[in-house]
Amino acid sequence: MKEVRLLGAWSSVYCHRVIWALKIKGVDYDYSEEDLQNKSNDLSRYNPVYQRIPVLIHNGKSLVESIIILEYIEEVWPHNPLLPADPYERAEARFWIKYLEDKSPTFYSYFRATGEEQEKLATEAKDVLKTLEEKGLREKTFFDGKQIGLTDLCLGWIACWLELMQEAAGVKLLEPDNLSRLHAWSRRFKDVPEIKDNIPDEDKMLAYFKGLRERFTASPAS
Amino acid sequence: MKEVRLLGAWSSVYCHRVIWALKIKGVDYDYSEEDLQNKSNDLSRYNPVYQRIPVLIHNGKSLVESIIILEYIEEVWPHNPLLPADPYERAEARFWIKYLEDKSPTFYSYFRATGEEQEKLATEAKDVLKTLEEKGLREKTFFDGKQIGLTDLCLGWIACWLELMQEAAGVKLLEPDNLSRLHAWSRRFKDVPEIKDNIPDEDKMLAYFKGLRERFTASPAS
Repeated sequence: MKEVRLLGAWSSVYCHRVIWALKIKGVDYDYSEEDLQNKSNDLSRYNPVYQRIPVLIHNGKSLVESIIILEYIEEVWPHNPLLPADPYERAEARFWIKYLEDKSPTFYSYFRATGEEQEKLATEAKDVLKTLEEKGLREKTFFDGKQIGLTDLCLGWIACWLELMQEAAGVKLLEPDNLSRLHAWSRRFKDVPEIKDNIPDEDKMLAYFKGLRERFTASPAS
Repeated sequence: MKEVRLLGAWSSVYCHRVIWALKIKGVDYDYSEEDLQNKSNDLSRYNPVYQRIPVLIHNGKSLVESIIILEYIEEVWPHNPLLPADPYERAEARFWIKYLEDKSPTFYSYFRATGEEQEKLATEAKDVLKTLEEKGLREKTFFDGKQIGLTDLCLGWIACWLELMQEAAGVKLLEPDNLSRLHAWSRRFKDVPEIKDNIPDEDKMLAYFKGLRERFTASPAS
């Protein structure tokens, strides 16, 4: 068995950040798909506090929480750096990562809501995306500069998941005309080989989101 | 003016973590007390996204979010280290910091609640403290080992604030008999000179918490 194992789930945003970082670093690993409805003994053993994915196991020791795993990967395999060397720029990267983490409940709520409530949440979510574009991305190629870094990886679900989520939800957030720079970033991001080769199949994801959306919007009586 | 400035508030847990780190590092700084009811231009200028404290300004550049500021301080002033050198131990420190951040709404809700709801939330909060004691602190002197580190600083509000909060709230959480190791850690933590000399006055804090508690529990009609 390889010295690096990853416990993950095919549809998980949090798991894919870790996969992308490992691919960019060229770290070889064994992957175990976890059934989240029927959690494995490994998940309880390696993530006793939360029993959730992703879990990275390196030389038998386990790490949990995707952003903490990413910082660890960066420290253990420092080649192809994913954080800038300058402490101030590192703090900026961490700021935008935390900013979107803190705002993510808005996106989940938007995806579950309908009607006026959904319109209201969509406006809030678009404001978040606008802040990311204007204050975070600005005129840069990637959030982390000329190359993708941890911020891009952590915001990558905007590029790879949100476009399908919004299709299933029926109310668009990210469109080329209202968020043109963020939309162009999304295209560039998905074009990076390590990303392109490691995102879930679009049709499968769309069917998954449509299924979720149906469940969320079904009336309690149905 | 010194090259380091801190915008803070006397009662803020988040601000004190930063003060403690600067004191341990021996970094000289100018402190500005912010009136959070009447925010200064500095706060809008240096924290345009959130307009909240703490803000660290170093050579004119501003940093926000207490944990991100702490990582920055550790990188810029690496002497008297606050994170272990080993990447796995660093990840463990970050895990417990995030764990308590994620659980902090339970403590806020407990402080606002009354009656049965408060009892229920107190039980949840005690479970969090138990997990910290059994899985985080274990038999160590400090969360970060023999010396205090970032985990201790971020958990420091348990030692310095929670004892007064629980007195104002009327339902105890941290007592020597139910959480003996965490309670002993709390004593040791408050005995570290950089902490002891930089915590708000206990009587002033208790009066502050009692005032808050009265406001939270006042009936809407009163």
